[in-house]
Parts: sequence; C-alpha cells; structure tokens
Amino acid sequence: MSLTTEQPEGEGGGRRARGEGRGAAARRASRSGGGPGPSLPYITRKIREYEVLDEEGLQLIERNADTVLEEIGIEFRDDAEALALWKDAGCEIKGERVHFPKGLCRELLKTAPKSFTWHARNPVRSVEIGGKATVFAPVYGPPFVRDLEGNRRYATIEDFRNFVKLAYMAPSMHSSGGTVCEPVDVPVNKRHLDMIYSHLKYSDKPFMGSVTAPERAEDTIAMAKLVFGEDFVEQNTVTLNLINANSPMVFDETMVGALKVYARHNQASVVSPFILSGAMSPVTVAGTLTQILAEVLAGAAFTQLIRAGSPVLFGTFAASISMQSGAPTFGTPEPSLVSYGAAQLARRLGLPFRTGGSLCGSKVPDAQAAHESANTLNMTLLAGTNFVLHAAGWLEGGLVSSYEKFMIDQDQLGMMQKMAEGIDLTEEAQALDAIREVGPGSHYLGCAHTQANFQTAFYRSPLADNNSFEQWEIEGSKRIEQRANALCRTWLEQYEAPYLDPAIDEALLAYVAKRKESMPDAFT
Amino acid sequence: MSLTTEQPEGEGGGRRARGEGRGAAARRASRSGGGPGPSLPYITRKIREYEVLDEEGLQLIERNADTVLEEIGIEFRDDAEALALWKDAGCEIKGERVHFPKGLCRELLKTAPKSFTWHARNPVRSVEIGGKATVFAPVYGPPFVRDLEGNRRYATIEDFRNFVKLAYMAPSMHSSGGTVCEPVDVPVNKRHLDMIYSHLKYSDKPFMGSVTAPERAEDTIAMAKLVFGEDFVEQNTVTLNLINANSPMVFDETMVGALKVYARHNQASVVSPFILSGAMSPVTVAGTLTQILAEVLAGAAFTQLIRAGSPVLFGTFAASISMQSGAPTFGTPEPSLVSYGAAQLARRLGLPFRTGGSLCGSKVPDAQAAHESANTLNMTLLAGTNFVLHAAGWLEGGLVSSYEKFMIDQDQLGMMQKMAEGIDLTEEAQALDAIREVGPGSHYLGCAHTQANFQTAFYRSPLADNNSFEQWEIEGSKRIEQRANALCRTWLEQYEAPYLDPAIDEALLAYVAKRKESMPDAFT
Repeated sequence: MSLTTEQPEGEGGGRRARGEGRGAAARRASRSGGGPGPSLPYITRKIREYEVLDEEGLQLIERNADTVLEEIGIEFRDDAEALALWKDAGCEIKGERVHFPKGLCRELLKTAPKSFTWHARNPVRSVEIGGKATVFAPVYGPPFVRDLEGNRRYATIEDFRNFVKLAYMAPSMHSSGGTVCEPVDVPVNKRHLDMIYSHLKYSDKPFMGSVTAPERAEDTIAMAKLVFGEDFVEQNTVTLNLINANSPMVFDETMVGALKVYARHNQASVVSPFILSGAMSPVTVAGTLTQILAEVLAGAAFTQLIRAGSPVLFGTFAASISMQSGAPTFGTPEPSLVSYGAAQLARRLGLPFRTGGSLCGSKVPDAQAAHESANTLNMTLLAGTNFVLHAAGWLEGGLVSSYEKFMIDQDQLGMMQKMAEGIDLTEEAQALDAIREVGPGSHYLGCAHTQANFQTAFYRSPLADNNSFEQWEIEGSKRIEQRANALCRTWLEQYEAPYLDPAIDEALLAYVAKRKESMPDAFT
Repeated sequence: MSLTTEQPEGEGGGRRARGEGRGAAARRASRSGGGPGPSLPYITRKIREYEVLDEEGLQLIERNADTVLEEIGIEFRDDAEALALWKDAGCEIKGERVHFPKGLCRELLKTAPKSFTWHARNPVRSVEIGGKATVFAPVYGPPFVRDLEGNRRYATIEDFRNFVKLAYMAPSMHSSGGTVCEPVDVPVNKRHLDMIYSHLKYSDKPFMGSVTAPERAEDTIAMAKLVFGEDFVEQNTVTLNLINANSPMVFDETMVGALKVYARHNQASVVSPFILSGAMSPVTVAGTLTQILAEVLAGAAFTQLIRAGSPVLFGTFAASISMQSGAPTFGTPEPSLVSYGAAQLARRLGLPFRTGGSLCGSKVPDAQAAHESANTLNMTLLAGTNFVLHAAGWLEGGLVSSYEKFMIDQDQLGMMQKMAEGIDLTEEAQALDAIREVGPGSHYLGCAHTQANFQTAFYRSPLADNNSFEQWEIEGSKRIEQRANALCRTWLEQYEAPYLDPAIDEALLAYVAKRKESMPDAFT
C-alpha cells in the first residue's frame, strides 16, 4: 500500500495557504467540509457552564489536593531530569517520589496560557483552546474497528485514513484528532509516521502528535515543520498531545518524555489522569476529584518547568469500574459529576479543560451506546469543556473505532454546536409580529416569520428518521445505524482531499521514507 | 376479560394504609417495588438548576407575554362560564377572546401553591410536586404498542395493566401515570373507568385523572373518593391532570371543562401548551417561550378563579417540526432551550414545572431513540423539572408505548436519580485516608475504603452490558433491547399486586359496573 498513489485535489491548504494568496481558498474551505455541507468553525459557547460544586466544596477539594501533593507526593519514574528540575524548584525528593510545597504548582502554572490558538495548516481551520471555545476531536486509540460490513477486526492504515477523511468532512468536527485507530498493519515503531502523514495529507484540520516515545514526538515536530515552517512551529502551537498520568499518582518515562519534547517546542500537553474510579482512584467522586487535581497540578506545572508559557490543558478521563466484572462503565452519573467538578477546578486554575466525548461500553451502536454517549456528551458541553477527545466513533470502552457510530455521533456534535448558541433574543427572534399575525387558533406554518427563519431555526439531522411509520416501513424499516452506514459510504465516495503543496507533500514523504529506512520493523 | 379475576396479594395499601396500622406494610412497601429492588422515593434534587436566560432575557419574555395577553388575548371556546369569570376578574371580552389587564394573571396566581403533596393510596408513595422535588411518570397517550413479540398494534386494556404494573415495579418511577396507552379494545366512553380502576388496583403509586370530558373527570373524583375517602379528596390532592392548551392561544371546552372539575375538587391541573415550534408557535425559541408563558399564565390563573389555592403546574411540551415532512422532531437543541427557559419562567412565577421526559421520533428503540430521549431527559433533570411525564416507554413521537423502551428508559431514570444526589463531601467521601493507604502506582480495588463504599458508590444498570467482547459474544451478541425484552418478561412474571382492601376493591368494581351500564358503547 503506497502513500504516494493519491494525488492532491483542489486548491488551498499547505504552508502557502497562510500567505497572501490564501483568501479564495480559505473562503471556499470555510464553506465546504468536503461534501456534506459547510465545515463549522469551533464552538464559541454562548451558554453558561453547569456547576456541581459550590465555593466551599471547591476549596475543600483544593485543600485536599494540596495535602496529597505535599504529604503523599507524585512519582516521576525513570526520569532523572524531571526529579532534578523538581528539586531545583523547591520540592523534596524521596526516591522517585516528589513532595510539593503548598502552592508551588499553582505558582508555576501562572505562566501557562488561559487560552491559545491551535493552528491548522489551513488557517481557517485553526481553533482556540480555552475560554468559551469548545473543540471536538474524533475517537483516540482503538486497536479494532467495526467496519461497514459489520466485521470487528484489527484496524489498518486504510481505516486510519478513512477516519481522518470522515473527521475532515464532518461539519462539527473541528480537529483531525490523533490516533483515530491503531493501524496495526504498520510496524509499531513506524506507525506514527504514517499517522502523522495521513493527518497532514487527508485533512487540513488541526492534528495531534505522537506520544508513545520521545523520538516519535520529535518526528511529529519535524514533520509539522515541513508543513508550517521551522520558526512558526517554535513560536506557535500546531499540535495538541495527550499525556496520560499513570493514576494513581505516577507519571512514567514515556509520557514525561513526550511531554518534555512537546513543551520545549511550545506544543500543547493535555495532562490527563486516566481514571476508572474504584481502581485508579477512590470509589467516591470527591476522592477522585482530589486525586485528579493533585495529578494535574503536578503534571501541568512540570510543563512550565520545561518551558514557561507553553500551553497545557487540565485533562480528565473519568469512568467508573464495575465491581462485579472489573470492566469500565460509561455514561453513568458518577463520572459526569467528576467531570463537572473537574471543569470547575480547571477554570479556577486558569487552564483550558479536556474531558468527555461520546463514550460507551456497548459492543454495537445500539440504545446502550447512545444513552451512554449522550449522557457523556451533554455533560461535556454543559461543563464548558474546551477540548473534547473521543467526540465521535468510540465503541466498546474505546477498544473499537466504529464507522457507523462515528456518523451517528457527529450528528449529535452538530446538535451540541447548535445548543451552544443559546437563545437568540433579537427582535426578529422575539417574533411578536408573527404571534400578532397568526393569532389564536391558527398556525405558523405559512406565516412570513416562519418563511423567513425556518432555514436556520432548527438543527436538521441527516440521520434521524421523523417520517410516518408507514413511510419508514416503505423505506425498509431501517434502524439509524443502517442509515449511518449508507451515509458513511456516500461520504467516503464523495471525499475530496484538501490541497497540499506538492513540494511539501514530497518533503513529507521523503521524511517518512528516510525515517522508516533507519529502523527495523517492530510489531510489539 | 373480567376485572375481578385477579385476587389481591400481600398486605398494605388502600384506605386503611393511611391509618394507625400502616407501619409494617409501609416499611415493606418502601423497601420493595414489587421485585426488581426497592422503590425509591421521589427525587429531592441536591444539584442546582441549569439556566439559559439571564435576568434581562427573562424580563423581555415576560414583557412580551404580557403584551400577548393584553393586546392579542387568549380564547376560551364554548364556555360561557369561563368568559363570565374572566369578565368579573376585570378582563375585556371580545367574542370568545379574553384580553388580560397587565399583571392580572400573576396577581391571581399568588394563591396557587408553590409546592404540594400528591397523595398515593399508599402513603409511603406520596410525592411532593414543586421546589427541589422531581417526580417521574410513564408515557401518556399512545394508541399503539410495540409488544414483546415485536408487533406494532393497537393497545389493549391488558397492555394498559401491564404498563401500570411495570411503572409500579420500576424503582425510579414515582407515579403510576395516566393514559399509559389507549386501551382501544374498550369503548371510548367507558375506557377511563377501566383505566382509573387499573391504576388503583395494580399500583399504589399516585395516579393521573381522566381529562377527555368533564363527566370523566367526575368519575375520576368519585372513584378516588372510594379509595381515599370523601373529605380527604376535597381537602387534599390525589390526582394530577393534564390540561393541554390548543396552541396557539386557545383553551377548548373539553380541556377547560376537565380543569374546572378538578380545580373545584382541589385536584392539580398541569396547564401545558402542546408546542411543535413552527406550527403551534413561532419558529424561534424566544417567540415560543413568549407564547408558552402567555398561555400558561391564562390557563393557570383560571384555576385560581375556580378555586383559589388549588394546585396548578406550569407545563411545557416542546418539540420542533420538520419543515420538510411536517413531522415533529425530538431531542434537538431548540426544544431543550425552550424547556430550560420555561423552567426559569415557572420558578419566577412560583409554580411547579412540568416538561420533558424520554421523547423521541424513532420507530424502534435504537440509537436514534436513545439519543433523542437522553438529550431530552438530561435537560429535564438539569432544568429542575418537578413533574416529568413520558419519562419511560415513549416511542414514535408518542404514537407508541414500547415495552422494551420502557425498560431501557426506566434504567436511565435510575441514573438521573443518582445524578440528582450531587457530590457527597463528607469526610468518608473525601477518601484522603484511602489515597494515603494506596499511594502512587498501586490500585484501589481491594482497599478498605473501596470495600466499605462500593455498594452505594456507583449506579448499577441492570441492562447495560459492560462485559468483554468475548463474553458478550458467548452470551449471544445481544443488543440492549433484547436484554430489555427479557427483563420485562421477568418483571411481569414476578409482579405482585399491592394490597387493596377487598371492600374498596368491590366498591370500585361496583362503581365501574354501574357507570358502564348507564352508557351505550361508543368507539369514536
């Protein structure tokens, strides 16, 4: 399977697009996501955040987190540099355990930006991370896919490209994401090169870097520089990078290694405790929040020791564990309460916040999948989340990237984007004249106000069936996943790659080829 | 099909249960919902309400609603008494159109209770309506069912009884509801008698009265008196009654007739504009809110003209209309914004609020059904809704009561009930000792804190599958509706009727028989 068989189509995008001549291409790009309709800009929430903790509760959690940091400490494993940096910063080090003086992490985090721009190679696709902005990104990490024939199988680089294409086309998907699935058919040590290339080639939305080894982070930076230019990358943020804590209270060599590379280059770290309450954290919401805050304070502050001012997010991945089976459970009340609380703690720290998505434990895109996803996604929006990983495609506790679920989820993202607009209170929206015109006992279907406003009034789902039962039966009595399957096939047929400067494309391919030559194949 | 074939089982319930000897039965009843687990008391929300309008926005809607009431007016059709009462209250009457002086409706509503008790025949099942209370009730109105064999067919009285039984057994269903489906096999003029009897016989949770004609409301009152006692009914509220406005801006003879009967007997009216935005109201959220507020102000204030102090709810049924097919659409952002806003307006008026539920347009309990239901239900809880009709079983835009969806929905109600508890901040929940005990790099699975707390820590779904893929496959690769189908069959097999005093049962049956004899069968 050659990466060079596909030719660039259309125009716009690539380094050139940031230059003077970008206007027309940018305008066209902003109108079209590649087929299904205009790609929407990232969300700027006009609705308020929902809060579950009052001032007293927030202070309690913060106090307890400080106690954890000082008394219990956080381990930075197999990384002498990290320990030395923490020691210089004033921490007490016992073995690999770092004990933090009260307030140190908060003090260090004062240099972290409250908000920053995550640049896309096509500038109209750049997004803000922080404040009132919400950015959706696809599922991250699954080794398996549920394909359009209904098979559950290992993911391939072809699947990876497909999910990048779908994320590019989905109107309310604001980012290309990262490991949209694990391309298991590519050697594990070379995989990141094909993944990064795919993001840069098949999409022009902002993408995430490789975090599985420091040298892969370096490759990410190097390839980004080929597209954005050397100086631009050093002075701006073009990748967002998922740095999971090994909860409870450990950061390992791999994650800290990637964090250091990205922070040095001013790239963003999403410091995310990966929490299954009852296993990686206490079985209670308050205990879980305490540990999350402590872990994030340590991990996020560390980015500022590496490079003051480098962007860092307060991340939270929250699920519970079934005490019967040991399996993670999603969409239940307790992780929602954790995430709402964590969002508040993040705002108080002045850090952009990541949580949620469309999480579920179901094996198929059925009502279980949808309930769990919707419970998570509604919370994600109302919590005021800035960056939303796993916003579409996640199935089976994150083991599977599902094409059908991706389509169903991205429809829901459109609903969330509309919801975030809140209530229009303009004179036109107040509609007093319409109420006068129609009067008691009539209807609004044909009135002037309805005619003038209906096109933009309601979110229109491309997948929901609202026809009569009889019409639905005539059309084959289809479930939503069957309609999603058909729409997904249409999108993949209609996909058109965004323009990438052929010289840049060649440079990327040469880099990938050279790096691959330097390594033996490794599959574990 | 005889109503007398089933014998009372167990003890407790009935008029006697409110007397001295109710202790043991009540305690038993509070522990058990009839099989699946303890029936939970109504929800007392410890979480705050989510708000979408600020003070300025709320005042704007209120001002506009006042303008509608004064300038455009509301019609009370075919009801000379209503017009006379409004005239006496100071309104200008033009034909059947009532024009309200500014502030009149608000002034009248000062006598309406902010909160009241809706009594069940078993006192431990009585619920509060208003304030921080949230009460769930099943689907209301469908002429069809989706049965456990997968057939879509007209509903029967047997289905009606089954849904009453399921609502009785569902732990987080706090009310028996009303027209859980239309028993189409019973003559339309006699149907209400069998429906009311079924609620009183097969459940001891609070029930809703018939509103389809004033004489049917009278039958409801008469039958309630046989169970609760004459005086008790006149001085308390034992039925909640759905009074839909004929939006836009009309109350018809039937609805006003039923409202008058209930208000005179101190029974609760849920004054609910039934809104499909774009058809029955303006196509915009702000315009819809204005009209809803005007309609509720008029309808609710009218209850106080009938009997000052009688309970009345601010109801809102909000959906949008598809401008392509004319079909209603559910679970979309705009109706959520309408409901959030209406909840705020209701709180400012000091009236208990009804909206939401588990609404959807899907024909089957698939991911569409679940997404639409979850979007609606999450909003319903966070809006601070006091009474939630259609909380379980609703399918196909309310045309169908679905057994499988009932089971799936009632599971979600359990999640909402847990969510409403908010975050426990006790020392035990803070779990600092657990964090100390476990420390970095270990896990919480076996620690003392987890052992002590895991039973109550997480909501446990009886339907979600969180097993491994392999285990799920071994168990037959089932979708959630298949598991729901099996659980529903188990519940119906396990159902045990709550105790009803045989003398009361006889009196009810005699009343039903006598009333039926007095009427010819009518099927339209």
